[in-house]
Amino acid sequence: MPSARKLRHVTSINDLTNAEIEKVFDLAERYLKALPDANFAYRIGGSSDEGKGRILASLFYEPSTRTRLSFESAMLRLGGQFITSADPATSSVAKGESLADTVRVVSNYSDVIVLRHPRDGAARLAAEYASVPVINGGDGSHEHPTQTLCDVFTLRKENKHLKNLNVVISGDLKGSRTIHSFVYALARFGANIMLMPAKGMGLPHHVDARLQEEFNCRPVPKDKYEDSSIDALYVTPDKPHQLSLIPSVGFDQTEDVKIRKKIDAFYVTRFQKERWAEARGDYPKIDAKFLKASKYAETSVLHPLPRVGELDIALDTDSRALYFRQAAYGVPIRMALIALLTDIREKEHLARFDGGFDAADHPTYDQPTDIGIRCANPNCIVHDPMERQYTRNRFSLIRSPATQKHRLRCTYCEGDIDEFAAVNTRKRRLVESNDDLSEAIAHDLGGLLLFADAAEAGRAGYADKPPRKRSA
Amino acid sequence: MPSARKLRHVTSINDLTNAEIEKVFDLAERYLKALPDANFAYRIGGSSDEGKGRILASLFYEPSTRTRLSFESAMLRLGGQFITSADPATSSVAKGESLADTVRVVSNYSDVIVLRHPRDGAARLAAEYASVPVINGGDGSHEHPTQTLCDVFTLRKENKHLKNLNVVISGDLKGSRTIHSFVYALARFGANIMLMPAKGMGLPHHVDARLQEEFNCRPVPKDKYEDSSIDALYVTPDKPHQLSLIPSVGFDQTEDVKIRKKIDAFYVTRFQKERWAEARGDYPKIDAKFLKASKYAETSVLHPLPRVGELDIALDTDSRALYFRQAAYGVPIRMALIALLTDIREKEHLARFDGGFDAADHPTYDQPTDIGIRCANPNCIVHDPMERQYTRNRFSLIRSPATQKHRLRCTYCEGDIDEFAAVNTRKRRLVESNDDLSEAIAHDLGGLLLFADAAEAGRAGYADKPPRKRSA
Amino acid sequence: MPSARKLRHVTSINDLTNAEIEKVFDLAERYLKALPDANFAYRIGGSSDEGKGRILASLFYEPSTRTRLSFESAMLRLGGQFITSADPATSSVAKGESLADTVRVVSNYSDVIVLRHPRDGAARLAAEYASVPVINGGDGSHEHPTQTLCDVFTLRKENKHLKNLNVVISGDLKGSRTIHSFVYALARFGANIMLMPAKGMGLPHHVDARLQEEFNCRPVPKDKYEDSSIDALYVTPDKPHQLSLIPSVGFDQTEDVKIRKKIDAFYVTRFQKERWAEARGDYPKIDAKFLKASKYAETSVLHPLPRVGELDIALDTDSRALYFRQAAYGVPIRMALIALLTDIREKEHLARFDGGFDAADHPTYDQPTDIGIRCANPNCIVHDPMERQYTRNRFSLIRSPATQKHRLRCTYCEGDIDEFAAVNTRKRRLVESNDDLSEAIAHDLGGLLLFADAAEAGRAGYADKPPRKRSA
Repeated sequence: MPSARKLRHVTSINDLTNAEIEKVFDLAERYLKALPDANFAYRIGGSSDEGKGRILASLFYEPSTRTRLSFESAMLRLGGQFITSADPATSSVAKGESLADTVRVVSNYSDVIVLRHPRDGAARLAAEYASVPVINGGDGSHEHPTQTLCDVFTLRKENKHLKNLNVVISGDLKGSRTIHSFVYALARFGANIMLMPAKGMGLPHHVDARLQEEFNCRPVPKDKYEDSSIDALYVTPDKPHQLSLIPSVGFDQTEDVKIRKKIDAFYVTRFQKERWAEARGDYPKIDAKFLKASKYAETSVLHPLPRVGELDIALDTDSRALYFRQAAYGVPIRMALIALLTDIREKEHLARFDGGFDAADHPTYDQPTDIGIRCANPNCIVHDPMERQYTRNRFSLIRSPATQKHRLRCTYCEGDIDEFAAVNTRKRRLVESNDDLSEAIAHDLGGLLLFADAAEAGRAGYADKPPRKRSA
Repeated sequence: MPSARKLRHVTSINDLTNAEIEKVFDLAERYLKALPDANFAYRIGGSSDEGKGRILASLFYEPSTRTRLSFESAMLRLGGQFITSADPATSSVAKGESLADTVRVVSNYSDVIVLRHPRDGAARLAAEYASVPVINGGDGSHEHPTQTLCDVFTLRKENKHLKNLNVVISGDLKGSRTIHSFVYALARFGANIMLMPAKGMGLPHHVDARLQEEFNCRPVPKDKYEDSSIDALYVTPDKPHQLSLIPSVGFDQTEDVKIRKKIDAFYVTRFQKERWAEARGDYPKIDAKFLKASKYAETSVLHPLPRVGELDIALDTDSRALYFRQAAYGVPIRMALIALLTDIREKEHLARFDGGFDAADHPTYDQPTDIGIRCANPNCIVHDPMERQYTRNRFSLIRSPATQKHRLRCTYCEGDIDEFAAVNTRKRRLVESNDDLSEAIAHDLGGLLLFADAAEAGRAGYADKPPRKRSA
Repeated sequence: MPSARKLRHVTSINDLTNAEIEKVFDLAERYLKALPDANFAYRIGGSSDEGKGRILASLFYEPSTRTRLSFESAMLRLGGQFITSADPATSSVAKGESLADTVRVVSNYSDVIVLRHPRDGAARLAAEYASVPVINGGDGSHEHPTQTLCDVFTLRKENKHLKNLNVVISGDLKGSRTIHSFVYALARFGANIMLMPAKGMGLPHHVDARLQEEFNCRPVPKDKYEDSSIDALYVTPDKPHQLSLIPSVGFDQTEDVKIRKKIDAFYVTRFQKERWAEARGDYPKIDAKFLKASKYAETSVLHPLPRVGELDIALDTDSRALYFRQAAYGVPIRMALIALLTDIREKEHLARFDGGFDAADHPTYDQPTDIGIRCANPNCIVHDPMERQYTRNRFSLIRSPATQKHRLRCTYCEGDIDEFAAVNTRKRRLVESNDDLSEAIAHDLGGLLLFADAAEAGRAGYADKPPRKRSA
């Protein structure tokens, strides 16, 4: 007699704990090995019929070949079926239907939904309205967690371990959702993250901040690793909790860091032309010449594909090139994730775990939508004219362990707002210090109103000074 | 040893008798209850494998999410499969192929076809050429019978009965094919139809005429129901055949009508922007405030979806809101219809019934295509440049019981032509009276030629006066 | 214990031997007869479940209804499944992904790929990179071999034999890939090929040359067949090998040719508007009047469909019209081909045959890509900006038995280059005679460099005269 299962979604790689990710990998390994028929020898991964009668819905609002087809192939190999809406122009979008309404309806036609959408945070919105599990197949520049599962699975298979693995990441680290999910996972499994961004395309500030504050990454000073080609390097110490006790975030100068010279993996990404207005002339191109350095002699080369010039095709026959194998792993990985999110693997269902990454439990605040601050990311789903009315104006309040300053994180796109003004509506005054804000949060979050700045608060009728001096 | 089955199509809700509609509902109820697996508890409706080996073809020439995906999901849950052509730009349409040729070919690839098309009457054309059952998934502004099956099924489930149910219908009653199928069904099951159209968007004249003349609806005078928000109200008396004996159609003043104040259902529709050149600024918006009146206290709120602003999302959590449940019923309803139209439910196959709605058996007339009158509806499939050559110029001749005048109804789009001229080609003269036309129809329909008016007949060589007085 | 199977592709009808084509037909016949259920009586062809667990990938870069849906229906009737990418705008093509990368990735998601592409030779490129069988579903103006399998299957079913069958082919013989595959097959099975091209739309030169030189077709002089409506007529003598001994190719005047007047089949094709910049006003229209001549009294009328005006719809009810039946045969034919190319029919797998058409084994030459000649066909896949880097610059060197001159045939599009200049790079001189070229080919193909003409060779540093007189 099954109990009511908790509905689980994968909108971010951080919706899965490390143990759950390992569980996905273990099941993927079993699918890889389960070849029901020797004639399938050319295939990477076997088939099953445990998913008979289950239906995957592919809702793709942005172009895709690999992600959509690999999900659909995965569902078929599980013995299930799929329905597809892959072209906004021939769907109800053309009539003006919102994502929120669509997922509520499609939840009745399917057992699991995979969504791709051009807006950051769209997967979170879908998850709020769906009555079946939602898997994020890429939402704007936010995240692409199933690509990361393939990537990390490939790294682990090739290297047997992830801890202290030297992983270089090259290209458009700003616009690539794939990279954002990837660096969180690398940090969580203790790999060393070596960034080699294209000019002006480093990690977004909020991703960088999370790496340091939530995932216990420590930037290593340039003089400690002596590789001028690497822009930034993060390591994750074994005892992460010590770090948060240190007031000034940053590399602990007293610790002796030993970074091996050898690079274990080199991850290349394309320029995300659909996210940026202008093309880049100086985008790095990785080829055999570049990889001639001795540190790259045994480096696994990965790429989420498609590539559009940044990875030389002459490398395809190089034994270091793993990207086609990485793509092939997409099927067993997605088979495993689908099986564990639905009732296909009822006994191993992810909802039986604690659920979600054991992240810091930040206080969240539902701001009214008709007054005050809104998410600062113009591509966030909350700013989509069609979806806006279905979204909440919700933020996590994060306190930086380094500066002790608070910032806001949008519940949907997870973008940060560093500067804002808070009003204590009961006292009708601005909250002036970080500690005052902490206290307000601790006591009564409902009494707060957040504004872009003190001036906006003033225009809304909240004077930028407390009404009476003594009440301060 | 199965006999040759009669091929049955559902191009209009009136292709099904009331008994057949009940049969679809009964089977849908069985699918709703047949949950093969308790883990599917979140699902509305179960799966089956009785459709194994059967293939549904989705031919969608207009955007759709709900209708297409629910048909495809229904076929999968029956254990069948589907093939899809959902984008005219990537199909043979781009090469200039006609619908008639396409359905003949696709009949060989599938066991049942569901068609959506922007032209009124396209489903009827497809049915003429297909060798498998055709289900109308919406054709222009004509009909959308499977939506109506979902709607009426929802009403019956919620209210246990349909007879004398008070149903308000609000919005674009002119362009919405959904509404046209819906009012026919409401009339046939004896519900009271209360119209609340957007300004200038009442029922098309021919739909209104059919309600009164064929479905025995009687408009109730305004002073009989005292609700100024209702534009028009139709009731269906229990003894419909008495009505046709009354020369002047209309409400029988001698009968005492008791319309309850309580509204049982409120059906909202969107503005059909794809059918109209101009937007409407004054389209009604239904929200909690509107539904505050006591007559709406227990009203079921329905909507075929998608909605684009005419139905406030704040209602979604209101217990009266049934529209998502209504959408969910689309799967078991379509499972039942597919099963009963194909050999999946051979013993209950619809062809074993009498077949078709027991409508008045109007005489039909195949006019030559190179002379005389053509359908007056510019969006009718007969006017599509690519399809024209595949269509016939065919009309039913309807005699109004009220005025005794004849009018023509196009076989495809079912639009009416009220004024026309008939020539008796044997006598080479205009048919001058309704009774003369009736006699000509009764004796020899083939001797007739129909023109837009006497002048057109004259230009075609038929004098507007009989050639010799004595022959009259 | 299955051995490693040889991977077989069908990019051209000539990838299959006559025996293999017969094998496909035999299996298609079995599928036609295998009706698992009498209720399927309306269906042409039965179902099976021998393909359970196998996945077909449809990659369509050009519009299609018939080919794609019939492949997908065929896979379903085999008990298999499919995944589809049918709209370049919603696939990775929109991000700039190459076909070569796509097929490598999709090979991991599927067991067989069917490809349609606007570029000539695209199927050959895909076959070079895929790790599963590739079936050409039409590539530019090159070939459409599965259509030809349906066509020839239909002819054989109707006429019991193919040898000496009189087959007229009418319309756009230049741009229609269907026709190119078809004439090769007709020649190989010994039918008489009667060409009735639209004005200026005869067979491409290279197709005509292959018919005569490789497929032993002999053009029949006009005075031998006395039918002015036929533009050209080819017969295939029973003893083909004698022909190659005759120095002057052409019709053997000493042989008495008896061409029956009766036409066995009339094959109509549409104007390929997507391949030509200008419309044609004088395209032939085939109708009942045209087919009134006594020689057409028992002619089978075929058309690959879609039609766009060149075949009168009034013929549809004519007993000679076979085109809808021809389309219906597409399903069992494609079922058979899929089954024989994959492991679905392991014991009958095509790889167990000799493999490929037993064509003349022309020497092939891999030219560098940065110097010298390139394929002269502007629509060849080698000129696609995205694919170029993945292609080789490879040609077969064909020596005409008639003129003894060499010409080049592109490995991808099979288009010919008649005039070119060859440089012997060791001797640093132009190869001046056909015999010299033959000798160079026989001894050391690698020492050759091919140029468009002597001038280009000169510009590349190869003087148009040998550097030293004595070395000649």
